[in-house]
Amino acid sequence: MIDICLFGAGMIGAVHAGNVRRHPRARLKYVVDPNAEAATRIAAATGAEVTDVETALTDPAIRGVIIASATRTHADLSIAAAQSGKAIFCEKPIDMDIARTDACLAVIRETGALFQIGFNRRFDPSFAALKQRILDGEIGAVEQVVITSRDPEPEAEAAVAAGGGLYREMTIHDFDMARHMLGEEPVELFAAGACLIQPYFARHGDVDSAMFILRTESGKLCHINNSARAVYGYDQRVEVHGSGGMLSAGNRRPTSVELSSAAAVSRDKPLHFFIERYQESYFAELDHFLDCIETGTQPSVGTEDGRRAMLMCEAAKVSAVSGRFEPLGF
Amino acid sequence: MIDICLFGAGMIGAVHAGNVRRHPRARLKYVVDPNAEAATRIAAATGAEVTDVETALTDPAIRGVIIASATRTHADLSIAAAQSGKAIFCEKPIDMDIARTDACLAVIRETGALFQIGFNRRFDPSFAALKQRILDGEIGAVEQVVITSRDPEPEAEAAVAAGGGLYREMTIHDFDMARHMLGEEPVELFAAGACLIQPYFARHGDVDSAMFILRTESGKLCHINNSARAVYGYDQRVEVHGSGGMLSAGNRRPTSVELSSAAAVSRDKPLHFFIERYQESYFAELDHFLDCIETGTQPSVGTEDGRRAMLMCEAAKVSAVSGRFEPLGF
Amino acid sequence: MIDICLFGAGMIGAVHAGNVRRHPRARLKYVVDPNAEAATRIAAATGAEVTDVETALTDPAIRGVIIASATRTHADLSIAAAQSGKAIFCEKPIDMDIARTDACLAVIRETGALFQIGFNRRFDPSFAALKQRILDGEIGAVEQVVITSRDPEPEAEAAVAAGGGLYREMTIHDFDMARHMLGEEPVELFAAGACLIQPYFARHGDVDSAMFILRTESGKLCHINNSARAVYGYDQRVEVHGSGGMLSAGNRRPTSVELSSAAAVSRDKPLHFFIERYQESYFAELDHFLDCIETGTQPSVGTEDGRRAMLMCEAAKVSAVSGRFEPLGF
Amino acid sequence: MIDICLFGAGMIGAVHAGNVRRHPRARLKYVVDPNAEAATRIAAATGAEVTDVETALTDPAIRGVIIASATRTHADLSIAAAQSGKAIFCEKPIDMDIARTDACLAVIRETGALFQIGFNRRFDPSFAALKQRILDGEIGAVEQVVITSRDPEPEAEAAVAAGGGLYREMTIHDFDMARHMLGEEPVELFAAGACLIQPYFARHGDVDSAMFILRTESGKLCHINNSARAVYGYDQRVEVHGSGGMLSAGNRRPTSVELSSAAAVSRDKPLHFFIERYQESYFAELDHFLDCIETGTQPSVGTEDGRRAMLMCEAAKVSAVSGRFEPLGF
Repeated sequence: MIDICLFGAGMIGAVHAGNVRRHPRARLKYVVDPNAEAATRIAAATGAEVTDVETALTDPAIRGVIIASATRTHADLSIAAAQSGKAIFCEKPIDMDIARTDACLAVIRETGALFQIGFNRRFDPSFAALKQRILDGEIGAVEQVVITSRDPEPEAEAAVAAGGGLYREMTIHDFDMARHMLGEEPVELFAAGACLIQPYFARHGDVDSAMFILRTESGKLCHINNSARAVYGYDQRVEVHGSGGMLSAGNRRPTSVELSSAAAVSRDKPLHFFIERYQESYFAELDHFLDCIETGTQPSVGTEDGRRAMLMCEAAKVSAVSGRFEPLGF
Repeated sequence: MIDICLFGAGMIGAVHAGNVRRHPRARLKYVVDPNAEAATRIAAATGAEVTDVETALTDPAIRGVIIASATRTHADLSIAAAQSGKAIFCEKPIDMDIARTDACLAVIRETGALFQIGFNRRFDPSFAALKQRILDGEIGAVEQVVITSRDPEPEAEAAVAAGGGLYREMTIHDFDMARHMLGEEPVELFAAGACLIQPYFARHGDVDSAMFILRTESGKLCHINNSARAVYGYDQRVEVHGSGGMLSAGNRRPTSVELSSAAAVSRDKPLHFFIERYQESYFAELDHFLDCIETGTQPSVGTEDGRRAMLMCEAAKVSAVSGRFEPLGF
Repeated sequence: MIDICLFGAGMIGAVHAGNVRRHPRARLKYVVDPNAEAATRIAAATGAEVTDVETALTDPAIRGVIIASATRTHADLSIAAAQSGKAIFCEKPIDMDIARTDACLAVIRETGALFQIGFNRRFDPSFAALKQRILDGEIGAVEQVVITSRDPEPEAEAAVAAGGGLYREMTIHDFDMARHMLGEEPVELFAAGACLIQPYFARHGDVDSAMFILRTESGKLCHINNSARAVYGYDQRVEVHGSGGMLSAGNRRPTSVELSSAAAVSRDKPLHFFIERYQESYFAELDHFLDCIETGTQPSVGTEDGRRAMLMCEAAKVSAVSGRFEPLGF
Repeated sequence: MIDICLFGAGMIGAVHAGNVRRHPRARLKYVVDPNAEAATRIAAATGAEVTDVETALTDPAIRGVIIASATRTHADLSIAAAQSGKAIFCEKPIDMDIARTDACLAVIRETGALFQIGFNRRFDPSFAALKQRILDGEIGAVEQVVITSRDPEPEAEAAVAAGGGLYREMTIHDFDMARHMLGEEPVELFAAGACLIQPYFARHGDVDSAMFILRTESGKLCHINNSARAVYGYDQRVEVHGSGGMLSAGNRRPTSVELSSAAAVSRDKPLHFFIERYQESYFAELDHFLDCIETGTQPSVGTEDGRRAMLMCEAAKVSAVSGRFEPLGF
């Protein structure tokens, strides 16, 4: 049994807590959150204990921490955990600021801490199978990638005002997926954003609709399209075109039921949002984290993946204004 | 927390044990099985204790039992559990013999024990949604039902020799589904069987391929087709035709990945067998059982459902020889 | 150019006339119909001439006739055409009466006339490809066939009163498809009919809903389900299960458009009825008929196919009353 | 009957000739082509007469001309036909040169000639239905369009050397589709091209892979992806995202046959190339042209559509080098 401490008792923290509880090789020992009520609720449901950062990090039984707290605390908690010799699972992003991100990653490198960044979609069964089949050579050399990524409904104005913007909140996952599927680093990025859905995105200097083109050194291209609202549910698709064919992964639906009526033949909308759609991926990324702790190996998605996705978000902001390909300079 | 005792530590017992462990409102207290090694393995994985029938049934903490042991023990264990005041979840069939089945059900009625029969497919999310949408009137009056039910590969000869035959091992689930979807009791049943796949089915007086037609009083019809071998995986589909349209539920696949190659456009085969395909249904039927225990209500699928499905198996055996519609006489 | 005479200027006659006009190797020279207006309309649209039976059959330029007139005239016209040395394309059935059918077929055999029966579905691109892929061995030995065949809406009462009944008007096509796909003659047939949709079917001794099971000598089984009304359009599907897999052919839709809305993901209903669904098959069966005329070979679907399908209709009527497998005795 | 003259007896000319022959309201009177053999072949198959430009344009019986000859002759033939009072159906592009295009369009405007440009895809049943359903308000306001357009195999080097480049040969159709589906003119265009498939594209200053983003004044965005080679067949898909949902049109397949084997569940590849995929659209655009001739109205896709698509090709060439959004300035 691997004892785990969870930092952050919000929505995504609760997802991780539930997965630790269900996992046969892990036990949730501690929950830490300034919101005592939220922490207590998760503790009650999982048999964990509510504690503080110091107690958790000084308890030698704790081998891994899951950082699912507010974004601004990710870097400090990661540093503290690394210095305490804990394996770290950190939700993205490491930090909104690149300098702070780099400082954090420096500590992680120095301490040799195990570090996994929460790009859970790589662990989605369909996307993972797609990637594996690329590696197996089923479509030859990758040439183009098309990523469709559209949320079911826009965040409330308060969240938009407080958040890091569409690129860093939403596209960051697609940027990671783009790097993952291209199999070659992008060197340039073009972004075009618009505010078409809710005027409050524009009021807060944000966009609610966007399209991107990435290019790698050898000329591979990747397109991403984003929207803050897809009334038919969470639209999460990937297409990879190669010299020998195309591999695609489509949406998943709650049931296989189909109605043939006088009007049309209709089936379920896609699963509603990330909690439902990526349920299996959250469990699988935890499983990978536990494997890495047991074997002492670095996770397959780590510090540099976190950093590069952030650099892509920065480039997107610049390109959306400049109207041109911006260099990525990883 | 509801304390549960599991009888039977075989494959399906392990499924139930895992679900009790994962369920937030239940705890597996005991495992009972003549095979000590199998019982110990499940106990170790779930924190349960290996014990005997008497200890389990006299422990007042135990509120429900799950009977997943050998078929010949179902009736006796059900009777003992009923007489001990436990709620009973019993795998199908209650017994291969109708007289013993009736005797068992008499005790259950007298004791007023909660009794749920393991027709898990009713709890499959797709089939459950389909049924609900019939009840919601989406296709008007049901007229015809078509059930496709084909195993990925035939059982080994030893299992065929020892088993209850295709009708009682396999079609019994489809007979229950037919009754469930028709919404009106069938009154006649026609069966045609054949041995096309493995000669040892015939050697043991069994068939490996079969088709059925059921008819209700008002003339609704239901077709079932069975095969002991579908090389493309477990084929489990239901179509319900009504005056206002058709509702269908198709197969489910491991991933949504699709390959477009120079040869064809191909996607995953259906999930391989019942453990994968009906995973969610096993959890959902447990959840229903726990709800019934907590609320003191009889499960939605109970004694009479178990008995009628068995009567349909009997009629199928007769019809396959007589070549005619046989009355069901529930 | 092959000169053709069309008997019958009704709906299906108009389909054949249009196909002859579009075919690069044929010319519609004559149209014959007691309804002068209907004949004139087709003649005007195709450049054909309205004439009478005798003129048509004594014109040496005419090499083939298409008999699309009232069913009761099929046998006499076939006999006359055979005796005039014309190749015959005859809509099904040859006659409602088996004795008259046999008498007609005797003349055809004696004269050696080319004779093609209008089982157009064998020429549907999807069903033809499916059959070819069976022959190519893609699914090994055929074991079970499932045919779904449901009309979009019931015929008016007058048509039901005047018609030959569901089995001879509708199922006859499915019986032919069953023989075609099984690849081995059925020896027994079980039918169960019901009147669920329109009471006038029962008033005229007919059914509007039916299910069938056929069995071949070696135990291959085939299921057919029929309905006189599918509000979602013409439902025409075939599944063939073999030792090495399943080949299926589904419905075809007018467009590939799909709507993802807040309610569901919906696509077009199947093509509405046989004129749309089997459009390509009518052209392809004509093409085959012309090939046979040019090469002097008997069509792939001929006299015996017409006769056996009729015998299956007879057996269905008997079985629906007897409630048992009826022998086919071809 | 409307008498038509066809200029150009190549592959696409043959398609138009066949459609005129099959059309009940048109007759192909003349074929004109410097390649006498090609012209004679089409004339023989359609009953047309081989003639020269002057004879055709001075024959008062000719009401419409179809210009399917070499691109460099389009403008001159259009001008001559306009000055002769003929309705003009002209394959795209009008001319590779914008100045010549404008000069040609000036004559057409002055003469008031009916002019239809061969953007046949607007007449594809699926794309036409999708557009109509946008107009019907099914998805509210259009926000984003995604167009996938990939050829089955690259042209031979000679064709690449002689051709107008990927943008003008291939993307031009997608540019028209983008304008059509956006329902608002794009004002900026970004292009990124690469040579990944055949080095000879680069040798001739061309690309074989490309991605585009277009933006309209109000911020609507459109993505197009192109490839000169998709081994799985002609990949032609459109997705339109709006405030109320998504409408998409997918690929079409030769048959509906599906094989479920031990390896996978596979169906047909998309129809192979434009001749098969857009067969119905070529007939429908002809039908529209004939309607316009009969009613004296301008076709729905005309001079300005031809010109703007060309301007987009020009902007694409510039953007692919500049790496920035280029203004369209229609």
